[in-house]
Amino acid sequence: MRNIKLTVSYDGSNYFGFQIQPDKITIQSQIQKALKSLFKEDIKIFGSSRTDAKVHAQRTVCNFHLDNKIDCKNIVRALNTKLNPDIRVLEAVDVRDEFHSRIHSVGKSYRYRIYTGEIMSVFERNYAWNLCRDLDIEKMNEACKYIIGTHEFDSFKAAKGSAKTSRRTVYELKVSKDKDIVYIDIRGNGFLYNMVRIIAGTLVDVGTSKFKPSYVKDIIDAKDRTKASKTAPACGLFLMEVYY
Amino acid sequence: MRNIKLTVSYDGSNYFGFQIQPDKITIQSQIQKALKSLFKEDIKIFGSSRTDAKVHAQRTVCNFHLDNKIDCKNIVRALNTKLNPDIRVLEAVDVRDEFHSRIHSVGKSYRYRIYTGEIMSVFERNYAWNLCRDLDIEKMNEACKYIIGTHEFDSFKAAKGSAKTSRRTVYELKVSKDKDIVYIDIRGNGFLYNMVRIIAGTLVDVGTSKFKPSYVKDIIDAKDRTKASKTAPACGLFLMEVYY
Repeated sequence: MRNIKLTVSYDGSNYFGFQIQPDKITIQSQIQKALKSLFKEDIKIFGSSRTDAKVHAQRTVCNFHLDNKIDCKNIVRALNTKLNPDIRVLEAVDVRDEFHSRIHSVGKSYRYRIYTGEIMSVFERNYAWNLCRDLDIEKMNEACKYIIGTHEFDSFKAAKGSAKTSRRTVYELKVSKDKDIVYIDIRGNGFLYNMVRIIAGTLVDVGTSKFKPSYVKDIIDAKDRTKASKTAPACGLFLMEVYY
Repeated sequence: MRNIKLTVSYDGSNYFGFQIQPDKITIQSQIQKALKSLFKEDIKIFGSSRTDAKVHAQRTVCNFHLDNKIDCKNIVRALNTKLNPDIRVLEAVDVRDEFHSRIHSVGKSYRYRIYTGEIMSVFERNYAWNLCRDLDIEKMNEACKYIIGTHEFDSFKAAKGSAKTSRRTVYELKVSKDKDIVYIDIRGNGFLYNMVRIIAGTLVDVGTSKFKPSYVKDIIDAKDRTKASKTAPACGLFLMEVYY
């Protein structure tokens, strides 16, 4: 039995997230449907990241077991002919038997996009939080310093999450701006449920001067979800890379 | 009677172009529907540019006559509450009675986007020609020199066009690249039907070395549509600005 690692990109706008759900169209259901149509058997894929509805992936990773000698390049080509154009397989490689895309990942990076122009952008409506007001990037970056490092991120964890521990390490977090778009780039060893979107919501409250940058330290210390800001909208979030 | 000039942005992916057509959803039909819902009367808008199905507009212009004292800022706000999020009114201003958005325009600029990455981009599927091969930007820019200036552009005119003369002036035409996207930026006093997309198709044939750059001069001189390349796909085209 081969173990195949797939690198996949998707526009999540039309999907109920990655993970398979009864009666919902998800990324996982679409890829499994394509695999079934190709290999005439039920093949389960193991995803590295359960992105929510409307969240996007620049490059995510999953794996599956296959009893077939087909060349990896042809797996990519054949799956892409079966998939809708808003899901693309970028790469397929053979990996060792034990490899599991979620268990063996050592980190992930995400980008959160915010549109700050005065009137909602027609081209950003599915790819950014259309905040339509300006943000103080300097203050947001000052707040980032408190988030970087190893913390118990209870204040930045949605109630729905099932992680055993809330201890995570954020290696990198920075805010930048290009024309009307503000980017929040974050890299860490793992993220709790909705953690990136709650961090984005909180940084935006710093950027609009609702919170002082140093207040973010108080939020972390409180270990209380109600202290942090609202979860930022799903459509602004992009899973950029999964590290092994 | 007031004469209102509207600046409008739209994602053309879900529309049959700008101009009103029976039984088709177009940008014009959507804006007129919004005006009717707002002012309770049939108001015709005069467009500067009849973009084709799936073509986008960063900033286009239209105008309409109005017998109502509503503030321009409120026209923008009210229309945007009625329109789908893929059409946005950016600005409304009162203009002199005689102003007509098409007749009085003195120039337009367009951008054509081409994705050159190996596998189609999920995020560019509606906003670029997914050519998925590399282009020689230097050669394309060399070819641009022959197109810049005043010519009879018969070779770059779709049969369907109804313009009286094919004489047009291209003021600016340049090709640039940022990561996997090639941009063709063109500005002129006016464009024939499909002219920008036929120029884009022809420049791509130079970029892939099918044509030598100097062959573009022969194409222009031939005044024969069959000499130029295929019309590039609609979804890569953006009307950027209309000048007055």
